[in-house]
Amino acid sequence: MSNSLTRWSTPPKKVIAIHRVYPELDCGCFAIQRVLGESIQVEADIFAHGHDRLFCRLLWRHEKESLWHSTSMEDIGNDRWRGTFLVEQLGKYWYTIEAWVDRWGSWLAGTQRRLPTDPDWAIVWEWGAWELAQFLERAQPEDRRQLEELREILLSEKISQEEKISRAQDPILHKITLRYPDPVCITRYCRELPVQVDPKRALFSTWYELFPRSASRVPGQHGTLRDCEARLEYVARLGFDVLYLPPIHPIGRTARRGKNNQPTAAPEDPGSPWAIGDETGGHTAIHPQLGTLDDFRQLVRRARQLGIEIAMDLAFHCSPDHPYVRQHPEWFVRLPSGQIRYAENPPKKYPDIYPFNFEGEGWQSLWEELKRVVLFWVEQGVRTFRVDNPHTKPFAFWEWLLSEVKQLHPDVIFLSEAFTRPKVMYQLAKLGFSQSYTYFTWRNTKEELTCYFEELFHTDVAEFFRPNLWPNTPDILHEYLQKGGPPAFAIRLILAATLSASYGIYGPAFEVCEREPREPGSEEYRNSEKYEIRHWDWDTPTPIRDLIARINRIRREHPALQQNRLFRFHWTDNPAILAYSKWTADGKDRILVVVNLNPFHVQSGFVEVPIESWGLPASGYLVEDILAGIPYHWEGNRGFVILDPSKTQAHILWVRGP
Amino acid sequence: MSNSLTRWSTPPKKVIAIHRVYPELDCGCFAIQRVLGESIQVEADIFAHGHDRLFCRLLWRHEKESLWHSTSMEDIGNDRWRGTFLVEQLGKYWYTIEAWVDRWGSWLAGTQRRLPTDPDWAIVWEWGAWELAQFLERAQPEDRRQLEELREILLSEKISQEEKISRAQDPILHKITLRYPDPVCITRYCRELPVQVDPKRALFSTWYELFPRSASRVPGQHGTLRDCEARLEYVARLGFDVLYLPPIHPIGRTARRGKNNQPTAAPEDPGSPWAIGDETGGHTAIHPQLGTLDDFRQLVRRARQLGIEIAMDLAFHCSPDHPYVRQHPEWFVRLPSGQIRYAENPPKKYPDIYPFNFEGEGWQSLWEELKRVVLFWVEQGVRTFRVDNPHTKPFAFWEWLLSEVKQLHPDVIFLSEAFTRPKVMYQLAKLGFSQSYTYFTWRNTKEELTCYFEELFHTDVAEFFRPNLWPNTPDILHEYLQKGGPPAFAIRLILAATLSASYGIYGPAFEVCEREPREPGSEEYRNSEKYEIRHWDWDTPTPIRDLIARINRIRREHPALQQNRLFRFHWTDNPAILAYSKWTADGKDRILVVVNLNPFHVQSGFVEVPIESWGLPASGYLVEDILAGIPYHWEGNRGFVILDPSKTQAHILWVRGP
Repeated sequence: MSNSLTRWSTPPKKVIAIHRVYPELDCGCFAIQRVLGESIQVEADIFAHGHDRLFCRLLWRHEKESLWHSTSMEDIGNDRWRGTFLVEQLGKYWYTIEAWVDRWGSWLAGTQRRLPTDPDWAIVWEWGAWELAQFLERAQPEDRRQLEELREILLSEKISQEEKISRAQDPILHKITLRYPDPVCITRYCRELPVQVDPKRALFSTWYELFPRSASRVPGQHGTLRDCEARLEYVARLGFDVLYLPPIHPIGRTARRGKNNQPTAAPEDPGSPWAIGDETGGHTAIHPQLGTLDDFRQLVRRARQLGIEIAMDLAFHCSPDHPYVRQHPEWFVRLPSGQIRYAENPPKKYPDIYPFNFEGEGWQSLWEELKRVVLFWVEQGVRTFRVDNPHTKPFAFWEWLLSEVKQLHPDVIFLSEAFTRPKVMYQLAKLGFSQSYTYFTWRNTKEELTCYFEELFHTDVAEFFRPNLWPNTPDILHEYLQKGGPPAFAIRLILAATLSASYGIYGPAFEVCEREPREPGSEEYRNSEKYEIRHWDWDTPTPIRDLIARINRIRREHPALQQNRLFRFHWTDNPAILAYSKWTADGKDRILVVVNLNPFHVQSGFVEVPIESWGLPASGYLVEDILAGIPYHWEGNRGFVILDPSKTQAHILWVRGP
Repeated sequence: MSNSLTRWSTPPKKVIAIHRVYPELDCGCFAIQRVLGESIQVEADIFAHGHDRLFCRLLWRHEKESLWHSTSMEDIGNDRWRGTFLVEQLGKYWYTIEAWVDRWGSWLAGTQRRLPTDPDWAIVWEWGAWELAQFLERAQPEDRRQLEELREILLSEKISQEEKISRAQDPILHKITLRYPDPVCITRYCRELPVQVDPKRALFSTWYELFPRSASRVPGQHGTLRDCEARLEYVARLGFDVLYLPPIHPIGRTARRGKNNQPTAAPEDPGSPWAIGDETGGHTAIHPQLGTLDDFRQLVRRARQLGIEIAMDLAFHCSPDHPYVRQHPEWFVRLPSGQIRYAENPPKKYPDIYPFNFEGEGWQSLWEELKRVVLFWVEQGVRTFRVDNPHTKPFAFWEWLLSEVKQLHPDVIFLSEAFTRPKVMYQLAKLGFSQSYTYFTWRNTKEELTCYFEELFHTDVAEFFRPNLWPNTPDILHEYLQKGGPPAFAIRLILAATLSASYGIYGPAFEVCEREPREPGSEEYRNSEKYEIRHWDWDTPTPIRDLIARINRIRREHPALQQNRLFRFHWTDNPAILAYSKWTADGKDRILVVVNLNPFHVQSGFVEVPIESWGLPASGYLVEDILAGIPYHWEGNRGFVILDPSKTQAHILWVRGP
């Protein structure tokens, strides 16, 4: 006996191959992401040698549970199996797969294929009775009677062949046998795979960004958190449920930037809110001109009454005046000589910003302090964070921080503001960010949008990356908006709000269609609020304000738009017309969006309607444009549209049926 | 300090993400397969946070080496890196990846992006000198001088800015710094990935199957191994390098099958060679009518002189008369009553075959005995095995057996005769089979062939599954051959021999275009050699014999046809014309095959020639039909063909160039 065999102490029971489990991220290193109430459909190749039938089940448990739940998996052909479970608690879940030979099912299958004239029927019954005896050894008392009964029938010489076959095929009995596999014959998949479960708003959220210092009703006056509070009703009326504030902390004076990012500031210039910290405080302080911590808490409370979450900005760097700079010079990037270095990305320099050194000698106390900062704001009621430039900080830091915070507060969500290379953006999502900024702003043509959203929604990216689409941000005013004017704003709004379950706008610049670049060819706003206080027209009704309110109401009323999983593009015969649909698993809500991507010219054409898969009669069905409130009666698998961008940029069609 | 941070005892040095390594089978559970002298191109997503440049290298070693070889990887864009290594020893290799921050390269990149007017140049030199000091601490004496010299230059106040920049950009110095990364800053990929390296004939081999008992020159006489030996020259003349013999062991008498698989045998019927074993011996004995072990050893020796390997059949089951049945009843599948069961797959029964019970009480001694059987034939000089029905035996058994044999004899190869579900066939290849039978026999149309070979050659299947294509076998006479006659035989031969580096035929049935089915609609041969001795015409020259010899010579002369990795299909405008090419990495050998798949009618059409990627002038180039010996002068990216199946079933074009 060679040594190589001794690794099996018992006979090598039938090993079942379990491969290509989906979803599974990087061999289970990272969690897939879901929100409360979502289901997870798990598939795997499961097979063994020979002809035996298998039984496969999906196991899952919440991290706080010690026992597994289970559900049987379905054979969907070509040795692929599928099962589904639902996540109903925040936090982490685990899932895996078990399989074993369905011995009774295999015996039955062989029995059913036998000819009535087979000379071996006696042997068949003997074998069946023996199988039943094995189950009997393991069965609970309540199941023993049925097994015993059938066993006696099979062995009886008084009972006819037909009667034996008919009794053996009892499906209830088959189910009983599946409860009692020989434990040593169960193959368990080699990994347990994680799921991170976030609150529903990690998937479905509608963001509004405003600079509190521009919120005052009095032109030229520095806005306050109380002014912000007064704007909440406006934000709620437009239908937003997250109000994101750029940093509200004291702003440094050293190397403060002037208007339009001038290298020197005039005495009245307020500086960039991202130059965080002065002698009065840093990441846990409120800028004195904005108000007090009490004002902030009041803002959070009042917002929540209106169904709005306040999102805080986490910008982990300092102005040179931040207290950390004196207290903890070891936390910063320093020259060999010890001098602290400001941020730069040659040839660009940011002398008003000192980056942290996340991997330097002081890393442990720095990491702990930043965690304290997050928990401080959680204490004040914040449950939503927008993280500035996470891609310039270590992956290990985010993995640790997000997991620490979620362990204490699984209802907290984080939006990653990483505009960087695709793989780095995806990695941050895998490390635990709940939502991410995207390349949407730079995807304007039909081909660009189709490619990008196929990648986001129809590859494994959909398992961990939740896009949050922004037509504009304080940093990005795309040429499409600059040149296309109000129709372009409407088109981009409709795309953002209906392509993804989460989107946001930077306002009121968006509502008033602010579109002057700093200089020709620039994507920066002229007179950007990043460097000065602006006074906006908040009150005049505009078509865009009306559109925003309508589209956000549609999003709330239509669950199909609150998810990204059930989505597809549709053929159209016009390269300027993009069509796509979203629907719910129960088939009750189906939204077909048809957008004219050309903000200048009328476009018309035909759009594919998948009447077969939607169960619509070719003879005719109702599609209701819920944006315009106009019903259309369409027939067959093509719908005709004509879209004049000066009036109607898109149809949002609720596909009602016959 | 929370406990969660203590898992890092030192500062968390920049962790580099290494993902989506290709090739990697099932998270590294299975080895990819290569043959001696092949290269392995490894790719991975490799990236870190921030803007630092990375250095990545591929590591590999043979299982008997303790130190890693390494080669630097190339950044091929979008954070994807690629490196290549060559395998030059039989057995197992391991490979993995290492990456670290290219600190000098990062410093240089920042330096290069700086403006000449940058006020911070002094700081830049200070930083550069500090980086050099770090390398100096780790540098070998022979590299210290250059590092030290540059450090002094950077710090010198007498040397101009331009001179410093120019000296710092010395690529040799950059290379030196890459030799001395900080060891704690190196990220190693989390897995070491296996490669199984087989002899070249695992990839490139040309098989001929014959029944020794039909090899006699005298009609009606039982052929012998000596008759086989006399046929070797014929086999060699046709250009085959593997001669595969169905089992040559004693054949059981109990339940012996008659001609055409009749349930009872006449006294003179020889029985199926797969009913192995009688009272004179089993899997290590030679059927007395075939000769002696000495005859067999002589056959192996003589074959090798002619460049032919003898392939043995490993059919792991027994006839009821096999000595094992008496000696080891515990090795067999038995009823609960203890009675040994013959094989069946209801409603089919095989009373002349007793299957082994690989997972029963006697499994250990059974496995060891079967290993002894293999090693016995290896002792007799056999290095090639064709394994009968491996898919009905446990995966664990094959994994163990193949690994045991290869550890002792890494030059042994195994062909898997698994005609079963695709995932089971692929799993057997992953477990270590060197070649596999395929569905080729049932893929006859352009669409079927295209789909199937795209899967075999252009998915990860290509990393572990080596197809061996058979136009016919003793079990399969496809309707295409039955109806299509000699042109169909020629077409299927050409496809098999040029699509895959390994193929085989069951002869002389193939050469004489034997094509009578047992009954209409059957894929079985009438008067199959499985159940009777046949007398063949070995001598009459036939077009097929000539074609076989020519095509096997072409395969030997053209390395492009000895591999499957560099392969693609080409567009044609006729659904009955299939075109594809194979080429060598050095571009010296390019074979374009154009086949008329219709054995009945003339077909003509245009074929795409990728002149850009092949570097051919549009003005004209030579393609030589090496099957017919006719040169053609083609122009542009379309070639015209006309193929009359009664004369010319295909062009095998050697694309020569201008």
